[in-house]
Amino acid sequence: MLFERIAATRRLKLTVLAAFGAGALAMYQPGQAQNAPVPSAGAPVAAPAAPVFPDAAATDPVAAGWMQGFPPAAAKVISFTPASNGFPRTRWSFSHIRELVPTASVWHGRGPVSALPRAERDIGGVPFTDADGTRRTFSDMLGLTYTDGILVMHKGRIVYEKYFGALDDHTPHIAMSVTKSFVGTLAAMLVADGKLDPAAPVTRYLPEMAGTAYGDATVREVMDMTVGVKYSENYADPKAEIWDYSRAGGMMPLEPGYAGPRTFYEFLATLKKDGEHDQVFAYKTVNAEVLAWIVKRVSGQSLARLLSERVWQKMGAENDAYFMVDSIGSESGGGGLNTTLRDLARFGETMRNGGRFNGRQVIPAEVVADIRRGGDPGKFAKAGYATLPGWSYRSMWWVSNDDHGVFEARGIHGQRIYVDPKAELTIVRYASHPIAANGANDPVTHRAYRALALSLMKLPNKPAS
Amino acid sequence: MLFERIAATRRLKLTVLAAFGAGALAMYQPGQAQNAPVPSAGAPVAAPAAPVFPDAAATDPVAAGWMQGFPPAAAKVISFTPASNGFPRTRWSFSHIRELVPTASVWHGRGPVSALPRAERDIGGVPFTDADGTRRTFSDMLGLTYTDGILVMHKGRIVYEKYFGALDDHTPHIAMSVTKSFVGTLAAMLVADGKLDPAAPVTRYLPEMAGTAYGDATVREVMDMTVGVKYSENYADPKAEIWDYSRAGGMMPLEPGYAGPRTFYEFLATLKKDGEHDQVFAYKTVNAEVLAWIVKRVSGQSLARLLSERVWQKMGAENDAYFMVDSIGSESGGGGLNTTLRDLARFGETMRNGGRFNGRQVIPAEVVADIRRGGDPGKFAKAGYATLPGWSYRSMWWVSNDDHGVFEARGIHGQRIYVDPKAELTIVRYASHPIAANGANDPVTHRAYRALALSLMKLPNKPAS
Repeated sequence: MLFERIAATRRLKLTVLAAFGAGALAMYQPGQAQNAPVPSAGAPVAAPAAPVFPDAAATDPVAAGWMQGFPPAAAKVISFTPASNGFPRTRWSFSHIRELVPTASVWHGRGPVSALPRAERDIGGVPFTDADGTRRTFSDMLGLTYTDGILVMHKGRIVYEKYFGALDDHTPHIAMSVTKSFVGTLAAMLVADGKLDPAAPVTRYLPEMAGTAYGDATVREVMDMTVGVKYSENYADPKAEIWDYSRAGGMMPLEPGYAGPRTFYEFLATLKKDGEHDQVFAYKTVNAEVLAWIVKRVSGQSLARLLSERVWQKMGAENDAYFMVDSIGSESGGGGLNTTLRDLARFGETMRNGGRFNGRQVIPAEVVADIRRGGDPGKFAKAGYATLPGWSYRSMWWVSNDDHGVFEARGIHGQRIYVDPKAELTIVRYASHPIAANGANDPVTHRAYRALALSLMKLPNKPAS
Repeated sequence: MLFERIAATRRLKLTVLAAFGAGALAMYQPGQAQNAPVPSAGAPVAAPAAPVFPDAAATDPVAAGWMQGFPPAAAKVISFTPASNGFPRTRWSFSHIRELVPTASVWHGRGPVSALPRAERDIGGVPFTDADGTRRTFSDMLGLTYTDGILVMHKGRIVYEKYFGALDDHTPHIAMSVTKSFVGTLAAMLVADGKLDPAAPVTRYLPEMAGTAYGDATVREVMDMTVGVKYSENYADPKAEIWDYSRAGGMMPLEPGYAGPRTFYEFLATLKKDGEHDQVFAYKTVNAEVLAWIVKRVSGQSLARLLSERVWQKMGAENDAYFMVDSIGSESGGGGLNTTLRDLARFGETMRNGGRFNGRQVIPAEVVADIRRGGDPGKFAKAGYATLPGWSYRSMWWVSNDDHGVFEARGIHGQRIYVDPKAELTIVRYASHPIAANGANDPVTHRAYRALALSLMKLPNKPAS
């Protein structure tokens, strides 16, 4: 149980990057078992004792027999009920979201599917030193971070592709907050189209938001998450707004007698201002939901249809993706997208290649360039992410501003698009880490990815097979 | 409002072919507005006064504005609640099932997509005389029967393809009881594999069904629906078991306090014997659900996966299909399949071509031959379907035994696979007819299809474009 040792040794150093995720399918009861304090500015947070979780091998969902048999044994059933929440069931449910809740399809189009050439390498043994100084290998990292699937592309070729447990190469897995980067990209594309003005007040597009926290915010503040809004993503707090959001969005089973909002729209209208806008990066899922609403209003299309027409079809996606939807069919732009790992890789490669993929300019080059230039590191620094020194946030992407130009889409249980332009490297990963905190992933994964990048940069070219 | 006139004039002649359908998404409140008496042997049924429905044009779901806007206007919202049930909302919801309930994907595979060559003809004007003696055209039939989409293939080529309202060429529409014919075909394929013995008792595969209506039934009796089981599909009766089935299967919103079964398995275990087996054809959706369970148990695969691997991938389907699932992810084999019309056409063509399609034997030839030979017309006749004289039922297909060898898969609101082997004709159709009774479709559609077959048979060959 390597992970537990790491968690224990790092317990007091965890600075938490809380992000959407625990809400989806309510993997956790509010207040249970999550060492996920609210991000605080600067100083390390004294987290509660790290919970002890069985390791990845011990929670393999196939070996565990979840949902096997017709019917499955009662103790092996996973359904959309409070009793079915939580790790380790998430190791199965993150690859089966549509069997639990209503969804909207992101059609892959009429093809042809774009090629993903292969030039496989045995990179499992690539060594790295984790944040605690322990020597590990790339393979170690996979288990330590409860990987469900990983795909590594180098110079446009698949060098490594592995699936574990309930995931395979054609089944969509929930992307959690990686969803936000899609929404931010779509918004930036509408800006490039001249249809959306980032300097405009939110209320130009959503007059309904007058009187809420967004009543005096701009679109750019929403895109870069510098809105002052009362909204907590502290998974350890049962009263945190993340739970109200999850209930309203149909991402969490409702208790009998629930009388709160039942749509994203209704929930967003309740949000109150807290502090000033444009001062500090404050990661809050509701911003992505507001941005998704703006994108729908401006484009006149559902998020599912817009993503299909503007991205999925153009990049030659291999499979349909889908969004979780609320009770009136509205997609969750905060965390509801589900894709195959291969199509996530296509999107990552599109971003790495300045918006070009599948022989065409899928995303305008200036959109990608603007995202990769990043946001304001000063506003980001005030948020106090110890594992992300020097980073910034732009159009719902995480930008390292490092010497490789690394940027990421990040989801709370270990979902990632990691692009290292200098190394010509794109890593996409789906995972079901038990801890809803990116501090549990970054100290291992970032070092593994950097080591891999440096290793691949040294290797001679290999012809694609 | 042509349809109303027809309904009125035919009111007393309607012999109802009740079939699964109204349960799905509970298009109707039990007991409301359905002139759907239980099939009775022989004599025409004196139906209650035919309800008056607005016609197809007046209920076009796009023109009506259902679910348009972000959010839609409150009066235009369709959700999975009792208030959202019923015609004309079904004109939208039948093409958006997955946005309302959980579903399981039938993966289309890695391609390539099989070609559907085109040789279009303007067949809209093909005349026919309906059962009332009125002269009509093929085009008239489309509106009269609330067609959402129709695709006609002649000699392996698309001669006609039209979509209306909420449907298009790549969106799945609910197939309702057409689902049963897929389940019956899969069962027959397992018989051909030697894995399933049709003469065996059901309890050999489902020991759980001992003590139920199926405790002394054979697999063949289930496949051909000659089981004596207490189960009413009378949509006009709020106490009919069709509603209990729909609630258990998650196809109908539950009222607060519901305490009944919440899975297909739990519901099937409650079924009691009524009469003797193997005496009379008795169309009851639960037989398809029991057969689906047998198919899953014998194959060791979910219905979604089995259909993908045995049919969808092999016939080169263009899009994923999907099944509605119950609260524990079990697919509805009685009516839960949703497909695009084009993939339904591929399946129909596979059946027309003796199981061959896409350059391969998708379904064993003997399986198709056995289905097309039909079941026992004597047992069928006892069920008293006035619109289907001389027909029989085999492995969940409807077989005309006529001079053209016509056979059909039939869904309650007008969904059809109509195969006329002699005319080398396959017609597939999705619809959202307000009346849950095939007697409202057959007197128009069967005559239109027959007229079209005869018309096409006279035409010279035309090269595919």
